[in-house]
Amino acid sequence: MPNLRVTVWNEGRHEKSSKEIAALYPQGIHGCIAAFLKDAGGITVRTATLDDPEHGLTDEVLASTDVLTWWGHMAHGDVQDSIVHKVQKRVLAGMGLLVLHSGHFSKIFKALTGTTCDLKWRESDDREILWFTAPGHPILTGLADHIVIPKEEMYGEFFDIPEPDETVMISSFTGGEVFRSCVTFRRGLGRIVYFRPGHESYPTYYQKEVQQVMINAVRYLTPTAHSAAPIFGNRKPI
Amino acid sequence: MPNLRVTVWNEGRHEKSSKEIAALYPQGIHGCIAAFLKDAGGITVRTATLDDPEHGLTDEVLASTDVLTWWGHMAHGDVQDSIVHKVQKRVLAGMGLLVLHSGHFSKIFKALTGTTCDLKWRESDDREILWFTAPGHPILTGLADHIVIPKEEMYGEFFDIPEPDETVMISSFTGGEVFRSCVTFRRGLGRIVYFRPGHESYPTYYQKEVQQVMINAVRYLTPTAHSAAPIFGNRKPI
Amino acid sequence: MPNLRVTVWNEGRHEKSSKEIAALYPQGIHGCIAAFLKDAGGITVRTATLDDPEHGLTDEVLASTDVLTWWGHMAHGDVQDSIVHKVQKRVLAGMGLLVLHSGHFSKIFKALTGTTCDLKWRESDDREILWFTAPGHPILTGLADHIVIPKEEMYGEFFDIPEPDETVMISSFTGGEVFRSCVTFRRGLGRIVYFRPGHESYPTYYQKEVQQVMINAVRYLTPTAHSAAPIFGNRKPI
Amino acid sequence: MPNLRVTVWNEGRHEKSSKEIAALYPQGIHGCIAAFLKDAGGITVRTATLDDPEHGLTDEVLASTDVLTWWGHMAHGDVQDSIVHKVQKRVLAGMGLLVLHSGHFSKIFKALTGTTCDLKWRESDDREILWFTAPGHPILTGLADHIVIPKEEMYGEFFDIPEPDETVMISSFTGGEVFRSCVTFRRGLGRIVYFRPGHESYPTYYQKEVQQVMINAVRYLTPTAHSAAPIFGNRKPI
Repeated sequence: MPNLRVTVWNEGRHEKSSKEIAALYPQGIHGCIAAFLKDAGGITVRTATLDDPEHGLTDEVLASTDVLTWWGHMAHGDVQDSIVHKVQKRVLAGMGLLVLHSGHFSKIFKALTGTTCDLKWRESDDREILWFTAPGHPILTGLADHIVIPKEEMYGEFFDIPEPDETVMISSFTGGEVFRSCVTFRRGLGRIVYFRPGHESYPTYYQKEVQQVMINAVRYLTPTAHSAAPIFGNRKPI
Repeated sequence: MPNLRVTVWNEGRHEKSSKEIAALYPQGIHGCIAAFLKDAGGITVRTATLDDPEHGLTDEVLASTDVLTWWGHMAHGDVQDSIVHKVQKRVLAGMGLLVLHSGHFSKIFKALTGTTCDLKWRESDDREILWFTAPGHPILTGLADHIVIPKEEMYGEFFDIPEPDETVMISSFTGGEVFRSCVTFRRGLGRIVYFRPGHESYPTYYQKEVQQVMINAVRYLTPTAHSAAPIFGNRKPI
Repeated sequence: MPNLRVTVWNEGRHEKSSKEIAALYPQGIHGCIAAFLKDAGGITVRTATLDDPEHGLTDEVLASTDVLTWWGHMAHGDVQDSIVHKVQKRVLAGMGLLVLHSGHFSKIFKALTGTTCDLKWRESDDREILWFTAPGHPILTGLADHIVIPKEEMYGEFFDIPEPDETVMISSFTGGEVFRSCVTFRRGLGRIVYFRPGHESYPTYYQKEVQQVMINAVRYLTPTAHSAAPIFGNRKPI
Repeated sequence: MPNLRVTVWNEGRHEKSSKEIAALYPQGIHGCIAAFLKDAGGITVRTATLDDPEHGLTDEVLASTDVLTWWGHMAHGDVQDSIVHKVQKRVLAGMGLLVLHSGHFSKIFKALTGTTCDLKWRESDDREILWFTAPGHPILTGLADHIVIPKEEMYGEFFDIPEPDETVMISSFTGGEVFRSCVTFRRGLGRIVYFRPGHESYPTYYQKEVQQVMINAVRYLTPTAHSAAPIFGNRKPI
């Protein structure tokens, strides 16, 4: 299996401002995600956070990243536009992007979708059931029918995104809402997966099925060997 | 507004075999649907049922139908293949098709999707909430955010259909299931809408919001003025 | 037929800097487009250009525009970001947008697609044939099979856009290239059509079939009566 | 790399009725395709033809096939419906299907699309250029920008298929026509690729780039490890 280079990006602010969240994720949300990706095999993992120089996303890091995962929530506005622009450029050139939970409101996701990415929400210990709507999809490898997360934040439709290329999971919540909770988009040579679960106050990223989805997703997002830049510009006839 | 010619097709067997259902729909499910479509204005409505000669779908009827609605359940196998084939041909030539509830298993829907159209189900008085996932879509004209149906049969994912062109509504049910309950497909020059609600033992088709969706859907399904047959076959260069 | 309010936006710089183009479009490209839209009936037309105050796109103008058409080429960078942002917001709230020819590189189109929108090109009097790939689509009303434009600029694939919701036309050019020349996207409550032809040095917008496509497109892009803003934010259970 | 089991199906009648075609493909079209797939590595290849018992597609063969390739032309009507039905069932259960050239009119492709699959055509030594419209797609691995086939049969739009999940290549022909020449669809757990080139009177399947596309396509069509049948039927609440 070829080695896959993943950079796990995390805002990392909740872990600094809340004792409860620091206790839940003592290595940060990024540390938890990095750990289970490493354990999956065939994946080299680095982490980067908002408060690192250049948010940890230097040209060198981006150039050597096959798939970037993105978790952010309380500080989307603190991400520099110039770095968002560089990440977008890398996705269009083939880098995979896995956007997680409240990352729906990140600058990078909004830049790639063109929409507000707004939604309904509620923090009320809803049970979430993620139903599979594309069985056979690589993201569902090793999983069957649905996943139950005992307690999660509710996200509800309308989720203001473009019609996805593929809708892989749809969630229901205790309160009766539904949400397209795993969707894919192609932009340029790159692919994007949005995966909903992962509120900072719940142990969601410790749940095995959630980890399996994310391991599958980063593998699915790996650029193909063919990553030659397309030919544009003024051209003579064939 | 141009006049729209709708044929409401119903299997019509439950109404004959069950006193309860006959009492709920004394003019048949087709009679109920025909009545509210007529009241909507600008629509000429005919009905046809399985036990009519040629199932009520003669060449003359099909040729003068802009949109066909289809409800069937217990007798899909009794629909003649030759008539299914004629309906399919008319859809590909531009006729709109509104497939309702248990019509998901009809021969005509399976012929147009190419899939099994299978799903999970339960008769247990679930509450259904239909959430809108494509606000601004013509099918949602005059409606806002979601519809609640107090009691309905449950249909659950995985719903084995091709990736829809548009997913307009997604339902949740009391038992925690979800379902893509209003979806559209283009096949040839024709468009297809599948709309989930309408179990025979509930008064669903008397609910105003459900009627509004169906009125909107038949208008949306109207063929455009441009209905010239495409040009196929052996052709000289331009 | 309800009245449709269209604003025809044009950069308007070629007409000022080139005598040839000024001679071809003495009222500007916007003047030519506005004239045939007016003649189509049922459409109220205004024009706006880059060099108008606020580019002619004040809050009042945008708020009373159902469909905006956009032609730009040599001065995309001169369009103020704040106005691009307002136009994007209006599209997401339901306004239709018809992007024309070199408008593929406009800030507004790139903001809504999330991609570079780059392509191949050549100015060499290629003949363009636009083949219809979605017969029955409202944009093709009154037209059949294909359109030939005797001389046009060539645009060739790869066209770096997201997978379109619908591909309505594909062009070939004398030099052997192809291009998805009429495509649709939904973003928020609004719809977008990109239509390729219209290089400033050719009389393309005087050709009847091209005019018919654009008349059809603005009608197709009209927002539905249902334009209620979606409900977002913190919500109680149903 | 896991071993991939491909069955190459060919009608095989042209090779029997025409000396020219027998000379061009002395082992049959299936023999040519089987040979280059074998050479690609990691693929176990079998062949099957129309005139074999059960067309070579016994239950045992189908059950042990990961990807089926299909070439047919003059004898689509001789393929037994019962076998078409079994192939369709296997695709819906996860088997990949690569439909080639005049296979567009095969019973199996029409059953899976629901449309007529009709098109324009001409045998006149047109040059075909296949332009890539989804760079980064696995089917394009190792290839860049476009492929030129010196002489081929022309296929022209409108190609009566559902809107593809992905449009990977679009062709132009000397006569000015265009064609969506590599498209993908998902049906059930299976994926389908249609790839246009391969007229029996030209040496198309000997061209290296064409072979590369087909090698990539069968790899892309491999079912994921997750091939558990979806859960359908009467279900209790979660």
